[in-house]
Amino acid sequence: MTAAARKTTVRRHPERAAYDREAIDAILDEGLIGHLGLVGGEQPYVLPMLYVRQDDALYLHGAPASRLLGSLAEGSRCCFTVTLLDGLVLARSAFHHSLNYRSVVVLGHARAVTDPDEKLAALEALVEHVLPGRTADARRPSKAELKVTEVVALDLDQCSAKTRRGPPVDTRPDLSLPVWAGELPLVVTAGEPIPDPHCSVPEPAGLRSYRRGDG
Amino acid sequence: MTAAARKTTVRRHPERAAYDREAIDAILDEGLIGHLGLVGGEQPYVLPMLYVRQDDALYLHGAPASRLLGSLAEGSRCCFTVTLLDGLVLARSAFHHSLNYRSVVVLGHARAVTDPDEKLAALEALVEHVLPGRTADARRPSKAELKVTEVVALDLDQCSAKTRRGPPVDTRPDLSLPVWAGELPLVVTAGEPIPDPHCSVPEPAGLRSYRRGDG
Repeated sequence: MTAAARKTTVRRHPERAAYDREAIDAILDEGLIGHLGLVGGEQPYVLPMLYVRQDDALYLHGAPASRLLGSLAEGSRCCFTVTLLDGLVLARSAFHHSLNYRSVVVLGHARAVTDPDEKLAALEALVEHVLPGRTADARRPSKAELKVTEVVALDLDQCSAKTRRGPPVDTRPDLSLPVWAGELPLVVTAGEPIPDPHCSVPEPAGLRSYRRGDG
Repeated sequence: MTAAARKTTVRRHPERAAYDREAIDAILDEGLIGHLGLVGGEQPYVLPMLYVRQDDALYLHGAPASRLLGSLAEGSRCCFTVTLLDGLVLARSAFHHSLNYRSVVVLGHARAVTDPDEKLAALEALVEHVLPGRTADARRPSKAELKVTEVVALDLDQCSAKTRRGPPVDTRPDLSLPVWAGELPLVVTAGEPIPDPHCSVPEPAGLRSYRRGDG
């Protein structure tokens, strides 16, 4: 497909766009939740959802009774967007203030995952996406639990990334204004773990140094 | 409007829902970006956007040539969702893993903001939303800059909040499993400020302690 033919072609700030899967996958793998867009009647709905990428698809899960997930499983058109907010961009002018970010937009039709092996693999991958190594510790899903979990897959054949990075871009006359300008990076870090009131098992190693991404 | 009549009524986990503006505003004021959902043809699109709440409306901005913002300004139905991710919920079973979060969904039709005073006030509020106090430092928008900025407002008359907080909810038989269970809070903090290469002005006080929300 040519870039011009894709619905995912970035039109505003095309210099910020990327279409290669390496760039796209890096963002999808670092993000924890995304925002799912669906249409009901003529009304768009946007809901936050956990997801995981496995090879060439995103997997989402939920309760089978969920209207939105049911509509997804029936193949409605959807959009799934993952955004990583990297920092504030503080310019000398109000106008040139911005945010540094990396985002991915995936368009398509989801499909219900009915194969038991694919379903179990997707659910394990979802837990691993939240906390690597966790599937080795936690009790695996029972047949009854698998039955009450709907899993849908969204193929990554229509997707694009958009990134803004770097310092503010002020106009030349503004450079002499006595205003601090630059970037303020934002990072997501773990706070103090809070054990469940019934828990007497030692805390897993590495929990306090939890970070998304390689950074 | 009764809760049952609202499109924003939360059906999955209704115990997590809130419809009072105090709860909703607290989430909207703490968030930095939201995700805007719009329909083009039958395809939903979800895009990350900066926003700010002012009284009973959200304000968004962008370039007038933006297709999506143009469609918003013409009154298309939209959805704007803000999600704050508060932490990982690590259960003893894979099935009961979850995330703690607070989210707001706003439905409606946006309107173009054409009154110059409302537009300027919204743009100043957007900068203040990014960094309180910044409008006093940065150069204010020129007439030309105001002209090339589209501002739209989305009234907060159809909105709801959804929150999950607290420890995992494991089944009784799982409580004796030798698996650590609890919450891992996630917080957004500021990294080391990066001055613009042309900048020789001292760094503003408080930049390094930047936090969203009162926490």
